[in-house]
Amino acid sequence: MSAKGVSTKPASGFRDFVGREAARREHLIHQISEIYQSFGFEPIDSPALENLDVLFGSGGQENEKLIFKAIKRGEKLEEVLQKADYQNLCDLGLRFDLTVPLCRVFAAYRAELPTPWKVFHTGPVWRAERPQKGRYREFYQCDVDIVGSSSLLAELLVMEAVSEVFLSFGVRDLELHLNHRELLIGMAHKFGFSDHIEAFVILLDKADKIPLEKLEQEMETLLGAKLPAQLKDLLHGQLTLDQLRSDFLEPVETIEKLIQSYSLRFQNLPIRFVPSLARGMGYYTGAIFEFRLKAGGGSLGGGGRYDRLIGRFSSQDTPAVGCSIGFERLLNYLEENQYFEKSSSVLFFPIFDKKFFEASQVLASQIRQSGIKVDIYADESKIKNQFRYADSKNYRWVLIAGEDEWAKNIFKLKDMKEGHELEVTQAELFSKLQSLVLVDL
Amino acid sequence: MSAKGVSTKPASGFRDFVGREAARREHLIHQISEIYQSFGFEPIDSPALENLDVLFGSGGQENEKLIFKAIKRGEKLEEVLQKADYQNLCDLGLRFDLTVPLCRVFAAYRAELPTPWKVFHTGPVWRAERPQKGRYREFYQCDVDIVGSSSLLAELLVMEAVSEVFLSFGVRDLELHLNHRELLIGMAHKFGFSDHIEAFVILLDKADKIPLEKLEQEMETLLGAKLPAQLKDLLHGQLTLDQLRSDFLEPVETIEKLIQSYSLRFQNLPIRFVPSLARGMGYYTGAIFEFRLKAGGGSLGGGGRYDRLIGRFSSQDTPAVGCSIGFERLLNYLEENQYFEKSSSVLFFPIFDKKFFEASQVLASQIRQSGIKVDIYADESKIKNQFRYADSKNYRWVLIAGEDEWAKNIFKLKDMKEGHELEVTQAELFSKLQSLVLVDL
Repeated sequence: MSAKGVSTKPASGFRDFVGREAARREHLIHQISEIYQSFGFEPIDSPALENLDVLFGSGGQENEKLIFKAIKRGEKLEEVLQKADYQNLCDLGLRFDLTVPLCRVFAAYRAELPTPWKVFHTGPVWRAERPQKGRYREFYQCDVDIVGSSSLLAELLVMEAVSEVFLSFGVRDLELHLNHRELLIGMAHKFGFSDHIEAFVILLDKADKIPLEKLEQEMETLLGAKLPAQLKDLLHGQLTLDQLRSDFLEPVETIEKLIQSYSLRFQNLPIRFVPSLARGMGYYTGAIFEFRLKAGGGSLGGGGRYDRLIGRFSSQDTPAVGCSIGFERLLNYLEENQYFEKSSSVLFFPIFDKKFFEASQVLASQIRQSGIKVDIYADESKIKNQFRYADSKNYRWVLIAGEDEWAKNIFKLKDMKEGHELEVTQAELFSKLQSLVLVDL
Repeated sequence: MSAKGVSTKPASGFRDFVGREAARREHLIHQISEIYQSFGFEPIDSPALENLDVLFGSGGQENEKLIFKAIKRGEKLEEVLQKADYQNLCDLGLRFDLTVPLCRVFAAYRAELPTPWKVFHTGPVWRAERPQKGRYREFYQCDVDIVGSSSLLAELLVMEAVSEVFLSFGVRDLELHLNHRELLIGMAHKFGFSDHIEAFVILLDKADKIPLEKLEQEMETLLGAKLPAQLKDLLHGQLTLDQLRSDFLEPVETIEKLIQSYSLRFQNLPIRFVPSLARGMGYYTGAIFEFRLKAGGGSLGGGGRYDRLIGRFSSQDTPAVGCSIGFERLLNYLEENQYFEKSSSVLFFPIFDKKFFEASQVLASQIRQSGIKVDIYADESKIKNQFRYADSKNYRWVLIAGEDEWAKNIFKLKDMKEGHELEVTQAELFSKLQSLVLVDL
């Protein structure tokens, strides 16, 4: 709380990002974007606020309850208040995911878009969750989609691009889990859950979250009988594709083709059939997949084919495959695994006397042109304070340019990590800096 | 309107960005960020939604009227509706600028931030304007600030970094206009407007928007007398710093120092004193400046010193200087001036037969590793459709790899612009592509 009564905290459930944390988020978003673009995926951007009828009826009722709604304004608000028409106080809402906007955007511009449309979208989404540790009301999503192809090539290209993102960050211990929506529904019927398909799938989704014994009990309660042997195998991870082939030829062959083709490309990222993989969202129609950290480390992203979602906005169904990266989880993983360097690759340029400022700006500008970032101190202050500033920003290299140095045109480079200093002439400066500062990236 | 009754348009006053437009926006945001970081400015990110008491009372009443407010949820909403407490229906609002969040964030984290704090923030802001041509309810702002320095070095570094952004995009015909808040207020007193300081400044701000004659009339009406000769000089752009020196020594010297120091660095971006420059916002306390296109082409950005704004969130005033780039205007300017290339630097890789898909993926991946973007077609389709796709994405270079080519390991590169084809072996492919595709950036 500030002296003047306005809280300086972000609103409950929201976060500010400053310093290294903000720089890391930005770096991540940019690198993901570069990789998707290297595969020919195009970025899109859509508004934070959508008409409420766009948001309702498409993304699962759980998400709809969590929409932040914007109240009407001016005369329109007065009108609904006068009528006590409280159901119509709002007209707009903040998007709760990026899939609904993608479908709307595709339907709006389909005539001018390439077919298939390879597209990615990174941005914040908002959900009015009850604030609690690790759950935020604003977080980033990062989706990649191919719209307009019913070929398995689309699944493969999406899986490939997302894999390249994870590999480019050096994520290890990852495996790709694969299943098929038709297989899930087929198994529900086969194992006697025809009247409880959704409940069956929801229980399966818990397979890695609750103890196996408890899961079996819950399934038996739902079924009202002992579980069939094959379902027990499934829950124990012992159900093979071969056992399912005769009953479900098409989805089994789809899974086999995807595994075969994917594993030719990615020897270091194992792919396997996981019959309990369900993924919550109800809109998938074909293959579903998830990038999971080994040893129960959780998911870094997932997706699948959704051939009937776009039809909600359009007069015709359009096949589509997509995958979403768990942006916040990936960031956590990278921080825990020391992906980010501690020292900064910026050269610090303190100002010993205001009279050197113009000359320092010129020199700094020349150094920047050689590809090195230079931070000139922005105040008139004791040199001690300026070094404290360099410390707080984790700068390793400092350019010393005082009275003597400017007179002789020989500068010093101070290494804040090792403590020593180097003398360099102005002519040597650029190449010296490149060998010292840039290697520290 | 779609077949199923949900509109596919974005909400009124909002925009979707697809294809090249989206890519350009992203490119611009990234390049601005890179330049600011090369000066040692750090990024920050703050929530879209702020508590309403943060948004109120800080950014000028005009902006406050335009806040999109989020309605309360659950029990809290029921409570205010039961009490008919319509003033308290909302608890959060979408930020209408980036300055208010910056001040709050600084006050919240000041103990852990470097001093001075060099920071930039790019992101959308929202204003519930009446929708009209060229005015949007969601648009990007792009702010750069130095907080905690009262030295003119701060003004200079902000002006320098923003100038580098414009120059890096090849913006020409730009000049930097400079004035000082104290000079504006001093002139208001001197010219007889002591009782109408704000109205006088608002009129001055219109100097480049309405005919001079009309402006003079309005000023005379406000003053209730003929205008003093010096004020007429001011309006005609003929008032010099020398004429003001004896009355306003300090602000005149500030302006002179800034002009002198800035022009040493930027010979191609003229800087000059413009006594009618006022800038709307009331929170400036010192130098104010604006980057204007010559010949009345409008502003691409501006800012100034605001030493008393942060005090609203903090027990102590903190000096600060900032500048905002008119992101949407800069983008328009660059599009009008053909900054962006028409053809895309992505290699297109059509699939002649599905059986080549895995081998194509491997080859594409190798090409990507040499720094070239490769878009593999994501469907099984006639080659004619695949070339139509390449056309719609403005791809110039196409890699031809059919039955013959794979058999001999000799591929063809088709130039869609010139129409001819080149034969290349797999070994030559990478260097050939680098000389052909990358030059087309």
